[in-house]
Amino acid sequence: MEHFFSVEDLTTEELYELFEQAKLYQFNPPKIKQQIFAANLFFEPSTRTKTSFTIAEKKLGLEVLDFEAATSSLTKGESLYDTAKTMESIGANLLVVRHEDDNWMEEVKDLSIPIINAGAGKNEHPTQSLLDVFTIYEEFGDIEGLNVVFAGDIVHSRVAHSNIKLLSRLGANVFVTGAPQFIDTSIPCPYLPIDEAVEKCDVLMLLRIQHERHFKKFDESTYLEKFGLTVTREKQMKHHAIILHPAPVNRGVEIDSSLVECERSRIFKQMEYGVFIRMAMIIKKLLHWGIIHDNNIEKCKHHFGKQRIQNV
Amino acid sequence: MEHFFSVEDLTTEELYELFEQAKLYQFNPPKIKQQIFAANLFFEPSTRTKTSFTIAEKKLGLEVLDFEAATSSLTKGESLYDTAKTMESIGANLLVVRHEDDNWMEEVKDLSIPIINAGAGKNEHPTQSLLDVFTIYEEFGDIEGLNVVFAGDIVHSRVAHSNIKLLSRLGANVFVTGAPQFIDTSIPCPYLPIDEAVEKCDVLMLLRIQHERHFKKFDESTYLEKFGLTVTREKQMKHHAIILHPAPVNRGVEIDSSLVECERSRIFKQMEYGVFIRMAMIIKKLLHWGIIHDNNIEKCKHHFGKQRIQNV
Amino acid sequence: MEHFFSVEDLTTEELYELFEQAKLYQFNPPKIKQQIFAANLFFEPSTRTKTSFTIAEKKLGLEVLDFEAATSSLTKGESLYDTAKTMESIGANLLVVRHEDDNWMEEVKDLSIPIINAGAGKNEHPTQSLLDVFTIYEEFGDIEGLNVVFAGDIVHSRVAHSNIKLLSRLGANVFVTGAPQFIDTSIPCPYLPIDEAVEKCDVLMLLRIQHERHFKKFDESTYLEKFGLTVTREKQMKHHAIILHPAPVNRGVEIDSSLVECERSRIFKQMEYGVFIRMAMIIKKLLHWGIIHDNNIEKCKHHFGKQRIQNV
Repeated sequence: MEHFFSVEDLTTEELYELFEQAKLYQFNPPKIKQQIFAANLFFEPSTRTKTSFTIAEKKLGLEVLDFEAATSSLTKGESLYDTAKTMESIGANLLVVRHEDDNWMEEVKDLSIPIINAGAGKNEHPTQSLLDVFTIYEEFGDIEGLNVVFAGDIVHSRVAHSNIKLLSRLGANVFVTGAPQFIDTSIPCPYLPIDEAVEKCDVLMLLRIQHERHFKKFDESTYLEKFGLTVTREKQMKHHAIILHPAPVNRGVEIDSSLVECERSRIFKQMEYGVFIRMAMIIKKLLHWGIIHDNNIEKCKHHFGKQRIQNV
Repeated sequence: MEHFFSVEDLTTEELYELFEQAKLYQFNPPKIKQQIFAANLFFEPSTRTKTSFTIAEKKLGLEVLDFEAATSSLTKGESLYDTAKTMESIGANLLVVRHEDDNWMEEVKDLSIPIINAGAGKNEHPTQSLLDVFTIYEEFGDIEGLNVVFAGDIVHSRVAHSNIKLLSRLGANVFVTGAPQFIDTSIPCPYLPIDEAVEKCDVLMLLRIQHERHFKKFDESTYLEKFGLTVTREKQMKHHAIILHPAPVNRGVEIDSSLVECERSRIFKQMEYGVFIRMAMIIKKLLHWGIIHDNNIEKCKHHFGKQRIQNV
Repeated sequence: MEHFFSVEDLTTEELYELFEQAKLYQFNPPKIKQQIFAANLFFEPSTRTKTSFTIAEKKLGLEVLDFEAATSSLTKGESLYDTAKTMESIGANLLVVRHEDDNWMEEVKDLSIPIINAGAGKNEHPTQSLLDVFTIYEEFGDIEGLNVVFAGDIVHSRVAHSNIKLLSRLGANVFVTGAPQFIDTSIPCPYLPIDEAVEKCDVLMLLRIQHERHFKKFDESTYLEKFGLTVTREKQMKHHAIILHPAPVNRGVEIDSSLVECERSRIFKQMEYGVFIRMAMIIKKLLHWGIIHDNNIEKCKHHFGKQRIQNV
């Protein structure tokens, strides 16, 4: 039995299957006709990812158990393993975990319920990678041959590491740009100066400057002009090129604030897609572990998407 | 499309319509037959208001998304706008927001889902005003001509500002009383000494001394005797006069502890009514924005009110 | 009308009835066909107990209201009574309360909805006692004549106090062991040295060293060897003897880490059983208070237990 710890756990075929499921779920979300408990164990702050999983779970009809690290027995020194094992014993059927440790997965891998990685230190954040690549796939219909540039704080970005591996595997040409101190030299992708990068890319994947992980202060006031996406640079992008960002955005640092919702920005679209790709992953794991079966899933004919509701 | 930011957003006709709906919902709560997500974004502490909205939402059959400011990406510096826009993108159909800023509404007014103000700094708290006035309406059947006295920390009370405007509009005679440093001189209502106030009022609206918003300490030990509702003063009130308080109560400061649940107190009744008036506002907004339609609402024949359940 | 504040509130007959219900609910969880609100008010950290109640409530079909002390009006100085009364007024039908005060129950005993004690300072934690004794009952079929040893920090353990009373009443022979400073001399049970205790017991009930309640530091490094359950001592236990622990476990302090999931350990089994015994108590109280009636309960034929789902 397999958890979902890394994008490398998925074959390319499985990946495209997930994308097809996610596409389908936008308009026909399935509903599980059993009482299944998902426990979201977030040991680090999160708005987007935690809420996205919560909505994905609720759209699927799961019961959601929220775990607040601050008011838990962690304050009594309980380990991740014991906390996770407790959740399993009490009745959780699925765990979604974010933890600051790069390798927390090792500690819990023998649990007998599926676990989905919602962030591991600065190592991996595989459902974010899935949603990023799904957004590109929805936009271009194909990944192969696209020029994708990662711009910004690569060295601290768990997203960058997962994404670069995944996009390279799918045939994209991956480049990096940004301030020299943010470039992870272990990544085997060519470096482009930002002005060259914006012209060349089909997809510009901006990364957040992770203030909270930096030991040294860096000069925010000049970053945008030197390395970020300014209004001038955005005009140099190809007609069809799109902008992604895993958010939260530092407005005025990695991107000019006025561009966050510009026409080519898919920043909020990514968040929308995140729900559907997570639904697809949850269903995949619940089926794979035999916790649900196909005949427990109701194919929904109603349209719950926001746009659909408003247009009824 | 309109959010609900202020009691001034409502015409007098709309106000009475809301009251009639709220009255109805006490015994026949409607149920929405669609999966609708309400996100409660509380950036300030709250027990009553947050729980009241949560129950209102659940009684209506909505899915509730809880946002804990302390464990969110706010700790990474995300703005209210970006947090709210994220919630919308991820799938929230309705936002309920409390924030310490007096004018946070300006920042999010262009979102494309309805927003209900659950408290804005010391400026407005319009659903509290609605429930206060609804409580008076349920009690007296009419607002016009009633003598309503606001007693206490008016200068720091977002409730007082909303309520005074609303009650004046509906024809009440509004007065203020309390320690001189708590009287907001910009409010155009006559001041009465407390002993005169208790005799004259039909409704005594006590306000909480907001320790947490005071820069200077004030002398709690003598406040009750000088300006609060003592046992002696309560005896001077008219037979039919009632006591309101938005709570939490400082027992022994603005009111003698023994009076909190006295016969003429409607303090806990207000909380009960708050749920119904919020249900009415939520339904109004969801209908108005086309997120639900009349035929998605099931008129419930069962009685879920506490008293009803116990008497079945 | 009675709350559930203490194991002493239950007659022996009621106790065995609860056990029989809990046994039944493992395979046939009942579902309440009404909208009932349970509010979990936890003023102290908890993972296990809070989640266990939450799952118990959700399995029964209740709506769960979570109360986070840290973001509540407690920060404005509101009392437990006013918080609880607020929950009742807003619509809670049942309260589950944990509070650091040994006697908080006194303050809220006159509320008109049932209250279940989920922990009172170092005084009582009666649902933990129920699940501990239920685990023993499930294991041995009878309590009478069993040798039960409490080992560890008895003086700070609210569980020990409740359990010792309960097990003595049911006919068990209760002993205590552990470091002298942890033995509560007011408890009328014989003391056994640890090496004698492991040989004699049918049930070894380990207790957590409650670092957070200790004023003086104690020497953790030698505790296990002197007073804890080492690998060597475990081998001296009778063939059928079992190990219990209310958790969270201090691995390597009261028990060798490798024994936490050994064959005779029922530590995670206890957590599983906790859900069923809490379901039984909740149903008992809701029926007793007339909040639900037998015909509002749907006897479920589906099997939701984890094992069952996987074996379907």
